[in-house]
Amino acid sequence: VTAPLDAILAAVDGDRLWRRLEALARFGATPGGGVTRLALSAEEIAARRFLIDLARARGLAAFSDAAGNLFLRLEGARPDRPCVLTGSHVDSQPRGGRFDGAFGVMAGLEVLEAFLDAGATPPVAIEVVAWMNEEASRFAPGMMGSKAFVGEWDLPAMRSVADGAGVTVGEALDALDAAEPDVPKRPLRRPVACFVEAHIEQGPLLERCATPVGVVTGIQGTRRYRVTVSGAAGHAGTVPPGDRRDAMMAAARMIARIDAAAARVDGMMATCGMLRLELGAPSVIPAEAFFSIDIRHPQDAAVEEMDRAIEQAAAAAAGPCEIRIDRIARAPTLEFPEAMRRRIAEAAARAGEPATDIFSAAGHDARHLNAWCPTGMIFIPCRDGISHAETEWCDPADVLSGARVLAATLASAAWDPPGGSAP
Amino acid sequence: VTAPLDAILAAVDGDRLWRRLEALARFGATPGGGVTRLALSAEEIAARRFLIDLARARGLAAFSDAAGNLFLRLEGARPDRPCVLTGSHVDSQPRGGRFDGAFGVMAGLEVLEAFLDAGATPPVAIEVVAWMNEEASRFAPGMMGSKAFVGEWDLPAMRSVADGAGVTVGEALDALDAAEPDVPKRPLRRPVACFVEAHIEQGPLLERCATPVGVVTGIQGTRRYRVTVSGAAGHAGTVPPGDRRDAMMAAARMIARIDAAAARVDGMMATCGMLRLELGAPSVIPAEAFFSIDIRHPQDAAVEEMDRAIEQAAAAAAGPCEIRIDRIARAPTLEFPEAMRRRIAEAAARAGEPATDIFSAAGHDARHLNAWCPTGMIFIPCRDGISHAETEWCDPADVLSGARVLAATLASAAWDPPGGSAP
Repeated sequence: VTAPLDAILAAVDGDRLWRRLEALARFGATPGGGVTRLALSAEEIAARRFLIDLARARGLAAFSDAAGNLFLRLEGARPDRPCVLTGSHVDSQPRGGRFDGAFGVMAGLEVLEAFLDAGATPPVAIEVVAWMNEEASRFAPGMMGSKAFVGEWDLPAMRSVADGAGVTVGEALDALDAAEPDVPKRPLRRPVACFVEAHIEQGPLLERCATPVGVVTGIQGTRRYRVTVSGAAGHAGTVPPGDRRDAMMAAARMIARIDAAAARVDGMMATCGMLRLELGAPSVIPAEAFFSIDIRHPQDAAVEEMDRAIEQAAAAAAGPCEIRIDRIARAPTLEFPEAMRRRIAEAAARAGEPATDIFSAAGHDARHLNAWCPTGMIFIPCRDGISHAETEWCDPADVLSGARVLAATLASAAWDPPGGSAP
Repeated sequence: VTAPLDAILAAVDGDRLWRRLEALARFGATPGGGVTRLALSAEEIAARRFLIDLARARGLAAFSDAAGNLFLRLEGARPDRPCVLTGSHVDSQPRGGRFDGAFGVMAGLEVLEAFLDAGATPPVAIEVVAWMNEEASRFAPGMMGSKAFVGEWDLPAMRSVADGAGVTVGEALDALDAAEPDVPKRPLRRPVACFVEAHIEQGPLLERCATPVGVVTGIQGTRRYRVTVSGAAGHAGTVPPGDRRDAMMAAARMIARIDAAAARVDGMMATCGMLRLELGAPSVIPAEAFFSIDIRHPQDAAVEEMDRAIEQAAAAAAGPCEIRIDRIARAPTLEFPEAMRRRIAEAAARAGEPATDIFSAAGHDARHLNAWCPTGMIFIPCRDGISHAETEWCDPADVLSGARVLAATLASAAWDPPGGSAP
C-alpha cells in the first residue's frame, strides 16, 4: 500500500495555513508586528488553547506530558505502533518574530488537516508537537521540553530552574496544568518512529539562492555561558582609582577581549545578548555584572578553542574583581542521518518543490530528538535572513512550499516508517 | 549682641539626633540596612511628612517651592532679612546608605531644636532645606531642586525630564503637591544670607586621619554622559560575522577603551554605573546599548582631556554601529569662598572639635548654591569611606561632632551674616 500522496498534496491549503499563522500571531502580538510569547506565559497558554480547539474541531486528540509539551494526534490504522512526529514550538523571544517555531507547528497541523481532507488514514499515527521552552528567553537554558522528552534532562532538576522573577519551571508547569485540566497526560520517553521539524531558516542563504526549501544537513555547534563578575559597590566620585573593584569595567574588558578573539577566527559568532548590573545606577560603581555569552561555529574544534579564549579573557580582564564562568549549555555540531535527509529530498522532488541542502546555524529541538529517533529538518527562507526580531517575515508561497514538502515527508514516513526510537 | 553659643552647644543632643536618623532610615528601609528612597517616590514623600510633623511639633514653619524643595524655618528677630540656610537631601540611591543627605537635613533640624531648647532667637531666620532629587538615580541629571532654586535650570525644562518608567518630573511634582496640600509655597530664587551643607565625606580621608570634622575646600570637577550605541537586532547564531551590527560589542569596546584611557591619568575616575541592552536576551544580537559614563578628577584640564578620550573611544569602537554621546551634566572644579571656610574652621575651634581641610570628591547641592550666596560645607567621616551602598555607616560621636560644628557655624552666620544672595 502506498500513500495517496497526490490527494494529500492537493489538500494542503496555503491560504488556510497563512490565516492560521496570522491568528496564532495575535497571542502576544507586539505593536511592531512581532510577538512576545514567553514559555509558559499567559500568552503561550492562550496560544496552546487555540491549538487544542483547532485540533479538536477536526477530531484530533490533544494531550500533553509532564514537561509541558503539547501533542495533537491524527490516529493511524495501527494505534499501537510508534507515531511519526512533527512540530516545533510556539514560545518566542521577547519581541520576536511570528514565524520562528510557529511555522513548524502550524505546518504540521495543516498536514494533519490535509490528510483528513484527503480521507487518508495513515498506517501509523502522526502527531504534531509544540515543545516547551525552546527559546530560553524566560527559563535558561532552552529546549527544555525536547530534552525532558528524550530523557536528556531530569524532570526535577528542570523544574527547579527559575526565571528572572524567581518563578520556577515547576511552578509554571503546575499553572499550565491548572489551565489545561481537560488535556490528558501521556508519558515522557514514548517510542517515536521519526521526527521531522519544519522551521524558518533564520539566515539569508535560501533567500540568496532563491530556493523555497532547505534540506537541513546538520546543526552548528554552540556553547552558552553565564559570567558573573564580582567587585565592590562604591560612590563613583570618591573611591580612589587604586581602591576600586569595578565589576562593569572588568566585564567590558572581558567582553571586548572575547570580541577580539572571535574576530580572529573565520566564521566565529560570539554574542553578549544580556548584561545586568548590580545596582545599575549612574553614580554607583557596579558591585556585580552578570552577562551571557553565546558562541557558535560550524566546527567543534573552533568552539573549543573559543572556550579557552573566554577563560583567558576572564583572567586578563579580572583585575581586582573575581570572575566566575558557568557553562550552561553545550552542543557539538550535529549531522542528521543520511536516510532522513534523502527522504526529505525525495519528498521535495515528489512535491515538485526546488530544494537544496543547508546547514543550520541556529539550534533546534530536532537536535535533542535526533538522539531518540531518526530526525530531519525542513527549512523555508525568511526575509533578509532576519529572525528573533519583530521584522521577521516569510513569503506565503514559501510557507506553502514548506508545508507541501512536510506533507510528502510525513506521508513517506507514515507509510514506510524508519527504524524508530531507541528502546 | 553675640550668640549664646555655649547654651546652644549644650543643647545639641546627640542621642536625639541619632534616634531621628534611625527613624528617617525606616522610610524606604532595605533588608540590607540601607534605604531605597528615590526622588519624589512614595517613600520620600512619607519621609518629608515625617520631617514636616517633627518641625511643626516644635513650632517651626514648613513650606516648599515649585521645584519640590522642602524648607523648615526657625523664625528670626528680623523676618524680612535673608535667612541663613542649611540642609541637604533625603532622596537616596537605590539600596543606598542611611546617612548620605539624611545627616545634613537631620543635623540642621537638630540645630534648630537646640536653638529652641536654649531659648536663643537668632537675629535672622534659619531654614533647613531638603533639596529635590540630588541623587539622579530616578531622574537625571540630579541636584534638580538646588539648580531650580538658584535659577540655573529652567523649571519647564526640568519638569519635562522623565524617569525610566516614563513618568516626568512635572507629573511627580504634581503628585507631591497633591500629597502636601497643607504645605504653603514660597518662590524660587529667594534671597539667602549663606548656605552651609553638612554631609558625610563618602571617602576614606577623615577616617584615616582620625578627625571628626572636615572643612570642605571645594568640589571635584565632573562630567556625566549618556551613550547610545545603535546596531541591528538578529539571531545570535545565524547572522554571519560580516553582517553583524552588535551594539553590545561596540559598547564593550568603547567602555574598555575609556577604562584604559582613565588608567593612564593619575587620579582619574571613570564609571559606567548603568547599562541597558535592547532587547537583552541571550540569543539575540543587541540592537541598542544605552549606558552612563561618569568622569571625575580634581583638575578641570584632566576632565577635558578625558572628554576627548571618550570621543576617540567611540570613534575607534563603533565599527558598523553608530554611537551618540550626550553630555548631560558638566561641573568644573569649584573652590568655596575663603571667608566661609574660615567661619566653619573657627566654629569647629569654638566647639572644641578637631577639624581639617578636605576636598570633596563627590558633587553636592552646595555646588549650585555657591553661585547664589556664600556657601560652605562640613564633612564627617563614614566607615571605610563607603557610600552609595547599604553598608554606609557613621559613628554616633562623629554625627554629634558634625552637628555641634554646624550649630556653631549657623550661630555665627545668623548673628554676623555674610554678604548674602546675588540680586
